[in-house]
Amino acid sequence: MKITGKQIIGYAKTTGGSGTFKSSIVTEDNSGPYTFDEGSIANVDEAAKKATSAFKTYKILPAADRVKFLETIATEINSIREALVAIAMKETHLPQPRLNGEVDRTINQINLFVNLLKEGSWVNAIIDRANPQRQPLPKPHICQMLRPLGVTAVFGASNFPFAFSVAGGDTISALAAGCPVVYKAHYGHPVTSELVGNCIAEAARKTGMPDGVFSLIQGQTTESGKALVTHPLIKAVGFTGSLAGGRALFDLAVKRDEPIPVYAEMGSVNPVFLLPGMLKEDAIGVAKSLVASNTAGVGQFCTNPGILLMIKGADTDQFLTQYAASLADAAGGSMLTASIYDAYCQGISKLKSSPTLKSLGTGVSDGENKALPNAFKVSGADFLKDKALFEEHFGPVALHVIAENADQLLEIAEQTPGQLTTSIWANQDDVAGFKDLFDILQEKAGRLMINNVPTGVEVTHAMQHGGPYPATTDSRSTSVGSQAIYRFVRPVCYQNFPQQLLPAELQNDNPLKIWRKVDGELTKDKVA
Amino acid sequence: MKITGKQIIGYAKTTGGSGTFKSSIVTEDNSGPYTFDEGSIANVDEAAKKATSAFKTYKILPAADRVKFLETIATEINSIREALVAIAMKETHLPQPRLNGEVDRTINQINLFVNLLKEGSWVNAIIDRANPQRQPLPKPHICQMLRPLGVTAVFGASNFPFAFSVAGGDTISALAAGCPVVYKAHYGHPVTSELVGNCIAEAARKTGMPDGVFSLIQGQTTESGKALVTHPLIKAVGFTGSLAGGRALFDLAVKRDEPIPVYAEMGSVNPVFLLPGMLKEDAIGVAKSLVASNTAGVGQFCTNPGILLMIKGADTDQFLTQYAASLADAAGGSMLTASIYDAYCQGISKLKSSPTLKSLGTGVSDGENKALPNAFKVSGADFLKDKALFEEHFGPVALHVIAENADQLLEIAEQTPGQLTTSIWANQDDVAGFKDLFDILQEKAGRLMINNVPTGVEVTHAMQHGGPYPATTDSRSTSVGSQAIYRFVRPVCYQNFPQQLLPAELQNDNPLKIWRKVDGELTKDKVA
Repeated sequence: MKITGKQIIGYAKTTGGSGTFKSSIVTEDNSGPYTFDEGSIANVDEAAKKATSAFKTYKILPAADRVKFLETIATEINSIREALVAIAMKETHLPQPRLNGEVDRTINQINLFVNLLKEGSWVNAIIDRANPQRQPLPKPHICQMLRPLGVTAVFGASNFPFAFSVAGGDTISALAAGCPVVYKAHYGHPVTSELVGNCIAEAARKTGMPDGVFSLIQGQTTESGKALVTHPLIKAVGFTGSLAGGRALFDLAVKRDEPIPVYAEMGSVNPVFLLPGMLKEDAIGVAKSLVASNTAGVGQFCTNPGILLMIKGADTDQFLTQYAASLADAAGGSMLTASIYDAYCQGISKLKSSPTLKSLGTGVSDGENKALPNAFKVSGADFLKDKALFEEHFGPVALHVIAENADQLLEIAEQTPGQLTTSIWANQDDVAGFKDLFDILQEKAGRLMINNVPTGVEVTHAMQHGGPYPATTDSRSTSVGSQAIYRFVRPVCYQNFPQQLLPAELQNDNPLKIWRKVDGELTKDKVA
Repeated sequence: MKITGKQIIGYAKTTGGSGTFKSSIVTEDNSGPYTFDEGSIANVDEAAKKATSAFKTYKILPAADRVKFLETIATEINSIREALVAIAMKETHLPQPRLNGEVDRTINQINLFVNLLKEGSWVNAIIDRANPQRQPLPKPHICQMLRPLGVTAVFGASNFPFAFSVAGGDTISALAAGCPVVYKAHYGHPVTSELVGNCIAEAARKTGMPDGVFSLIQGQTTESGKALVTHPLIKAVGFTGSLAGGRALFDLAVKRDEPIPVYAEMGSVNPVFLLPGMLKEDAIGVAKSLVASNTAGVGQFCTNPGILLMIKGADTDQFLTQYAASLADAAGGSMLTASIYDAYCQGISKLKSSPTLKSLGTGVSDGENKALPNAFKVSGADFLKDKALFEEHFGPVALHVIAENADQLLEIAEQTPGQLTTSIWANQDDVAGFKDLFDILQEKAGRLMINNVPTGVEVTHAMQHGGPYPATTDSRSTSVGSQAIYRFVRPVCYQNFPQQLLPAELQNDNPLKIWRKVDGELTKDKVA
């Protein structure tokens, strides 16, 4: 498939970059790496202007037209899936089955939003009828629904080249909401990104979407990203990546003359609390599950269980022994990018040099430049003394914290910063005995699990992938599941409007047959 | 009624302020002004800590207990309403009927949230059932609902001493959501604030709420407010006031180690578009309505129609003539505080000295230090050249912008910064002819009206009182109406939880009989 290395700005392939950069992989004919234009401030400006112009049309299209657009994106991606997976394997070192599964996930994700739009009730239509007889003043007809925020900037992640990238959850939920997207591709997989970008541009063309509804900016430096977040025509930002990266974008966005919302998902250590009853029941099984979860995909998941907490005792010792044994069999592997691998190695060196940490062993090395799974243990008291131990080390490493007693475990729970997830392994006795722990942990994460590993994030209505800072910059939102659409909308209220000026969702006849709240009651009925 | 001049911190009246300040009114026995302790950083710290401790209990109380608390607040306020209105009249110079109405509004507002909690479906319960047979992996049971964010700081407004103050919409919606409140009283009405604060503290005591669920900090300086917004235990902020004040709090909140959401409602000029068909039909009637709206309550409403826009022509001239005539009969009055009056006079001087503005006349002065209604006109071309003309001058003044033609009116609409409201006066012909204007204005405000004045904000489900920046710092939210509760919550997701650990809202049996989304369908049924 032909790679241009240019920006995709609406329907055009655009040059005028501020330099070039090379891909990490070579061309099909082995003539060397691909060359990409580095997205310039002018490229960003053009994309933002085209998107703003497109928004005027896109925002008032019937939902059925957005449905066609999204469905066609899925069709386009599916039609080149072999090529996509082949390229992504080279660019990300992720294995074929995982990438195939990720393409499925990406398409399922699109279908989730397609179904949400088809059903239509997500707009939260609320109607309070007029009462001309009310004293002392008549009550006007008032109604509201959610409307798109405007042009949205999306920054893709390195670790999911499909599901959290060009046509990933952020892009699709913004497009579903009615917001044009200017997408900043991750420099880790520019070739995959161009191919998926072409699919979206082609789908836009085929379904008659306005030129500019989607653009893709390539870049290895932070220049175009900064330009995007500070551009006055950008109205919201979606991001998946590191704490440093997400916070930098947030800081830029809130300093603007017009501050804008930033939905940055910045990873997590996803603490796992192993309660004594459960360890008594099945220390071996729990250890095997957690080694598998910690080392799957070379540990490159934002829900990777990075910190495991337990109370000292014989069952805990058995757990640790089994964890070390299972870890010794766990394979490492190539990481997504050279810089991610370097950061992992530095993190492991730092942990190794800590006087309070003890190694629990490592996994199997299967070659040069491949990450080796690791585990360490530390006492609860030492852990509480060193806040830095709460930091994430992206990769297959777990820190086991051995609390002196239940009180210390609770104290650690209290000190835990915001997380995407937290899990508890508990039997019936633990459920009864650790009520306080459950109450504390509700303040610490977006998703709580019992006896489940945190890796594997279901794409469904009830999913919450987002938690208190520093897990995200906005705990009120999710980046996975149907509720993700609510990041890119705001309520607009219409008072005393004639029927023909109201959006279909708010017209008395309820032509879209959606659920609405009328005078405080949910109903699909027409308004009398 | 006894005024202590102290901070109300949980159930205690607390001293240890960082100085004192005097009320603008004198004591009942005429012995001089009341003396208030200036809230100190230590007071704020104590209130935040007590509130955090209270949160542990408050957040897990059944909604029925919060209902009792809110109902008792309403009862307490109602029981001393004569005294409250008498004091507020002196402190704010607002007339008795208006203040009586505002107490009613405050109580109605409390009842709105009481009914929301009683009905219970507001928590947005979503349940996706398990599917143990799914391949390749079983699907776990996943459910989510909205949970309180934590301790909330609320800053009251000067212009609504009840409805946007101590027991106003921000406080009540936060308490309804399950968040303790630390309230910073407006220095314009400290006596009224103490009396209402006592009502909330008394209601908390009578209904057995945890000590610290509500505190009230007095202060004339910005010291305690800054301490509040930067306190690590504060998790959200509600504010109603000026752009400068709201932005300052926002800037502090987003610079924190842990940034927190700030819901600042910062006023607006609420542009009114007068379309030619409507002016042809009823220039006289429209002019009378708008003079009344602009000068009501000495213009001290955040929805005051401060900018009126029209296209030049004979009907527009007739409108302007009638506006000037009605304005000449409109009475001014005492403003809320001396500093608000000073700012109004300075604003009027600035407008008078502008070479492009022409006075349309003034209203009736009824004494010294009383604001005089004013109106000015300016050409569309001159208006477009001077962005400062979009600024709000809090008080009874309107700027009439006379566009050269419809295109220029649309250009002004495009240039309009974010607003709480925008109104259009239109007849049938205008509705057909100005489609573009309606589309543009949807991006500019939270509430759009046809042939209604913007003053008078209904407290109802469909109300949206909040718009794009600079009207607010968060256009995704409202500070009036039942949807205001959504500012103080975040979704929490429970995966593979045993029934007894789930909140009642998410249990299979649906004991609260609320609406829930189960496998994508809204239902009140039990989950099988």
